[in-house]
Amino acid sequence: MENNIYELQYAIDTFYFLVCGALVMWMAAGFAMLEAGLVRAKNTTEILTKNVALFAIASTAYLVCGYQFMYDGGWFLSGVTTVAQMDEAAVSQVLADSAAAGFGGDSVYSGASDFFFQVVFVATAMSIVSGAVAERMKLWAFLAFAIVMTGFIYPIEGGWTWGGKLVPLLNKSLSGEGGFGYSDYAGSGVVHLAGAAAALSGVLFVGARNGKYRSDGSINAIPGANMPLATLGTFILWMGWFGFNGGSTLKLGGISVANEVANVFLNTNAAAAGGLIGALLLGRLVFGKADLTMALNGALAGLVSITAEPADPTPLLATLIGAAGGVIVVASILLLDKMKIDDPVGAISVHGVAGLWGIFAVLLSDSDATFMGQLLGALVIFSWVFVASSVVWFVLKKVMGLRVSAEEEYEGADISECGLEAYPEFVNFK
Amino acid sequence: MENNIYELQYAIDTFYFLVCGALVMWMAAGFAMLEAGLVRAKNTTEILTKNVALFAIASTAYLVCGYQFMYDGGWFLSGVTTVAQMDEAAVSQVLADSAAAGFGGDSVYSGASDFFFQVVFVATAMSIVSGAVAERMKLWAFLAFAIVMTGFIYPIEGGWTWGGKLVPLLNKSLSGEGGFGYSDYAGSGVVHLAGAAAALSGVLFVGARNGKYRSDGSINAIPGANMPLATLGTFILWMGWFGFNGGSTLKLGGISVANEVANVFLNTNAAAAGGLIGALLLGRLVFGKADLTMALNGALAGLVSITAEPADPTPLLATLIGAAGGVIVVASILLLDKMKIDDPVGAISVHGVAGLWGIFAVLLSDSDATFMGQLLGALVIFSWVFVASSVVWFVLKKVMGLRVSAEEEYEGADISECGLEAYPEFVNFK
Amino acid sequence: MENNIYELQYAIDTFYFLVCGALVMWMAAGFAMLEAGLVRAKNTTEILTKNVALFAIASTAYLVCGYQFMYDGGWFLSGVTTVAQMDEAAVSQVLADSAAAGFGGDSVYSGASDFFFQVVFVATAMSIVSGAVAERMKLWAFLAFAIVMTGFIYPIEGGWTWGGKLVPLLNKSLSGEGGFGYSDYAGSGVVHLAGAAAALSGVLFVGARNGKYRSDGSINAIPGANMPLATLGTFILWMGWFGFNGGSTLKLGGISVANEVANVFLNTNAAAAGGLIGALLLGRLVFGKADLTMALNGALAGLVSITAEPADPTPLLATLIGAAGGVIVVASILLLDKMKIDDPVGAISVHGVAGLWGIFAVLLSDSDATFMGQLLGALVIFSWVFVASSVVWFVLKKVMGLRVSAEEEYEGADISECGLEAYPEFVNFK
Repeated sequence: MENNIYELQYAIDTFYFLVCGALVMWMAAGFAMLEAGLVRAKNTTEILTKNVALFAIASTAYLVCGYQFMYDGGWFLSGVTTVAQMDEAAVSQVLADSAAAGFGGDSVYSGASDFFFQVVFVATAMSIVSGAVAERMKLWAFLAFAIVMTGFIYPIEGGWTWGGKLVPLLNKSLSGEGGFGYSDYAGSGVVHLAGAAAALSGVLFVGARNGKYRSDGSINAIPGANMPLATLGTFILWMGWFGFNGGSTLKLGGISVANEVANVFLNTNAAAAGGLIGALLLGRLVFGKADLTMALNGALAGLVSITAEPADPTPLLATLIGAAGGVIVVASILLLDKMKIDDPVGAISVHGVAGLWGIFAVLLSDSDATFMGQLLGALVIFSWVFVASSVVWFVLKKVMGLRVSAEEEYEGADISECGLEAYPEFVNFK
Repeated sequence: MENNIYELQYAIDTFYFLVCGALVMWMAAGFAMLEAGLVRAKNTTEILTKNVALFAIASTAYLVCGYQFMYDGGWFLSGVTTVAQMDEAAVSQVLADSAAAGFGGDSVYSGASDFFFQVVFVATAMSIVSGAVAERMKLWAFLAFAIVMTGFIYPIEGGWTWGGKLVPLLNKSLSGEGGFGYSDYAGSGVVHLAGAAAALSGVLFVGARNGKYRSDGSINAIPGANMPLATLGTFILWMGWFGFNGGSTLKLGGISVANEVANVFLNTNAAAAGGLIGALLLGRLVFGKADLTMALNGALAGLVSITAEPADPTPLLATLIGAAGGVIVVASILLLDKMKIDDPVGAISVHGVAGLWGIFAVLLSDSDATFMGQLLGALVIFSWVFVASSVVWFVLKKVMGLRVSAEEEYEGADISECGLEAYPEFVNFK
Repeated sequence: MENNIYELQYAIDTFYFLVCGALVMWMAAGFAMLEAGLVRAKNTTEILTKNVALFAIASTAYLVCGYQFMYDGGWFLSGVTTVAQMDEAAVSQVLADSAAAGFGGDSVYSGASDFFFQVVFVATAMSIVSGAVAERMKLWAFLAFAIVMTGFIYPIEGGWTWGGKLVPLLNKSLSGEGGFGYSDYAGSGVVHLAGAAAALSGVLFVGARNGKYRSDGSINAIPGANMPLATLGTFILWMGWFGFNGGSTLKLGGISVANEVANVFLNTNAAAAGGLIGALLLGRLVFGKADLTMALNGALAGLVSITAEPADPTPLLATLIGAAGGVIVVASILLLDKMKIDDPVGAISVHGVAGLWGIFAVLLSDSDATFMGQLLGALVIFSWVFVASSVVWFVLKKVMGLRVSAEEEYEGADISECGLEAYPEFVNFK
């Protein structure tokens, strides 16, 4: 009898993980559509190719080595063992532990479901980069970077934080009293700030798009080619984020955890709504119009902002945290443009600046988190990813070059990199 | 041991609610894509902005006051309490009630998951409006209406029906014998007819698009700009409707409820299929072609038609109810056009007329429902929403105006309202 | 108490089926977007209409007769009985059986959820056909074929294999020792090869598009009109495939099954990733570019390849099986073009050739499967579907004709079949 209950709990927690993982996988489609909508038509096939390919690369690189770097996951070492072949004794051990720990013990779910959930996170971090370097970076250089980012750079900092390897400096749950606990529920820092750090480095190495910043100092607004795609991408990300944040409870099967998961869903939605409204209203003040792309980025910034602590805030506080994220992202996009940091889709602002805000917003509702802990975490993550990424971008620049030629950029990367226009029958001018 | 089972049941029911809620949230993307596909290119950014913004507004307004108006939900009163802070005693009470009531007692799920499920319903009702008034209504007037609709008008009638406040007039479960029970499982009336009533009022206030009805009495067909988007939107709505209807059982964790939920999924799909086929065949008879937009609206009408009672009918009856909805919607679209009621996406026909049909289709399979009860419910819902909406539209017309200028309408709302074209590189003519 | 656990298990298994079924239904949107992206603008409305209509037809035809042909499902016979009306005794029987069989007995889920899961599979098989015959087949002839395919041809071979009717020739679980067991977990053969066989027959009957193969022997590459749609469609299929393969365990509620399901999710993702990388790299070698359409078809081929056995391989082996599928599909697309078999979207290669590979890839990880069994299964499925389809195509050709006129083909099927352009404001040339 008692075993039957644990069997069911195991099944539910595993299923829960898989559903959340599928939702996070779906975010890959969201990034692809968002970025395809925000670049010009002539670079659309290329950005689509980057997005699908980076997801495939992330899935494979994390399988081959990333998971091990992050968690010392022994069973993946050789890549030929399977969860199905996990020792029966291991499962028994899980059950025994669970029974000993009382209902709702740790790790009451399939190891493969955990891997599945983790692997789609890696792809999210990498997806952030593709948008920022869009419209001028070479496709194959980007994909080479993706291998290192998803197989090594992200797993290392993920190991320091979620993997508990920088104890007691960064890991909250393991830090003793007086230690610096870094608290990041679903990854405002571990995933989003990390992705943005790699993106910022890439943008600095590859430079701005030709024609973006004119010699007279003015900024050339380059509108995206397809607003419905950008909107669809945002909705997909919004939906997928329920899995991203919700799954980060790591289990479901009990009343208190179920309440927490429900709070996470509710707060995630509230923060996105707040972010959209904040950006829409600020956009109205600044531009005098209802700026759709700002509103979309506002919703995404709201989502990033709540990601470091989606469980504890009240729904109203979550709305306000999101709204602040929406305001911040509009300001950041305008500021980065003044600094001539050319980010066609606003990824650095959405994931980096709002991610930073999210890390500190934890302090508003989690009394265990400390300012120093959050600061240290943000610094460690940003520094590591920025420096490591810079090394890789530098090497790639020397070895194969990062940037398409000026002629290719003018013609569009679709022709030069992919040999295929995205909309061969529609476009009149480039 | 026994507690463990309730813990699991609580977790499952909560998870079930959250998955269904995420699917209903996804319907917001469906409405956005459907409407973006059915308007002209020059009004696409604006309709997208309306759709994302109304979802954010609905999420926030229902949080701030709508849920309270609908359910007297005390814990939301101040907006600063959270489910996590709900008294432990309350959870104990739920468990005790559940134990006393036997397995499968009421409310065996997180309050936050209930709120999450309810809040995405509100947004659905409001999404219906945006399509009907598309291509000529001012964006900010529309958003102001959205606040009142989602924070007040919908919650009031939702409280009368699902909240059980008009007892015994409307509420079936609480009506005594001989009383008029209004039966509306997932909201053919409460959500869809309500949304359509607000839409109809809005259309009457804002008037038809310029050029739609010519002075010689003929009707100018204005094709939508992007059929793949409209089709995608329909598929999204179709998928999301599994959550919309399926989640309305309000729980899952037992054999009889699980059977009911499975029936709901099956019948929801069957009705959509029937509606599509009905509209496709009638369209073939009337127009001599396979009219895609009619087929899509037929599928949606089928979904609306089955929504008031998706559990009881046999799958074949569900198919036929849907098919009738598909036929009705084609006739209604043609009729409304003759009456010069200009609804660019057919929302009033799909959600209002098919919603009305759905309310009475309950009588085909639910022997407890009465004609008078259904009639009363439909009348109360329609009257309240239509009158209340008209007051709001009237005030907004006086205060800020409802309609863009003729020049702005000719140029397209994208430029005047959003300052951003949806497809800046594609369009040749307007 | 014990009953309560079975109640929960029943609820979980039913819910699991419904979630997976909803994901498979979502694949219909994936096929629609993929095909709409890969045809020319002038044939887009028509391919969308075919896709939505075939899903509706499949849902209805399988309800009316297909399920019976496949499983002798008595309760569907008259179409007026419902699962809700299933004898209470039947549910008691299920519980009793389950109790007798110990935890995790067979069939611990709602019959309606099983039907829902099966019906969306049928639509998948039919969706394969629409792409292959795109841009020249008459819409109504196609839909007539869809009725026979989904109501009869597919259910018959589905009955032989999954229904266990060709015992011991084909059915693995029932074959005695020494018999030929055909092993096909989620349908590389039963669904994908079957769909491709019908598609191949259709392509042979309808012929190549005008202008595809020039008189000088050269091949005219006809690019698709909308790459973001094709990419979106692939992502949707990728996501839906988690339900397609995952749900094919047919239940969830226990540790070993949950582990299996988790493996299936992980391997499905790994194979898609492998397929994409394989096709991308081979495309780079052959064409010198990063060919997006090949990469997308590679991902789909990877998914098809793993479908016959997604549970047993290690994740690395799954990646390699997928990669081989990706390589095979590129070669197959090129080869079919040389043979002047005109398949605008590559459906025959993706679902047929990679499906065949998937059937034999089972031998790499399932020691119970035999080469003869897999060969026999493939032969039986292909022969039946190809021959039966050919009869239907032949009759339809005689009765109503299969192909639009040359003028209609030149103008585009959107105008001739649907009376509605897909992008009336965008297109400049045809």
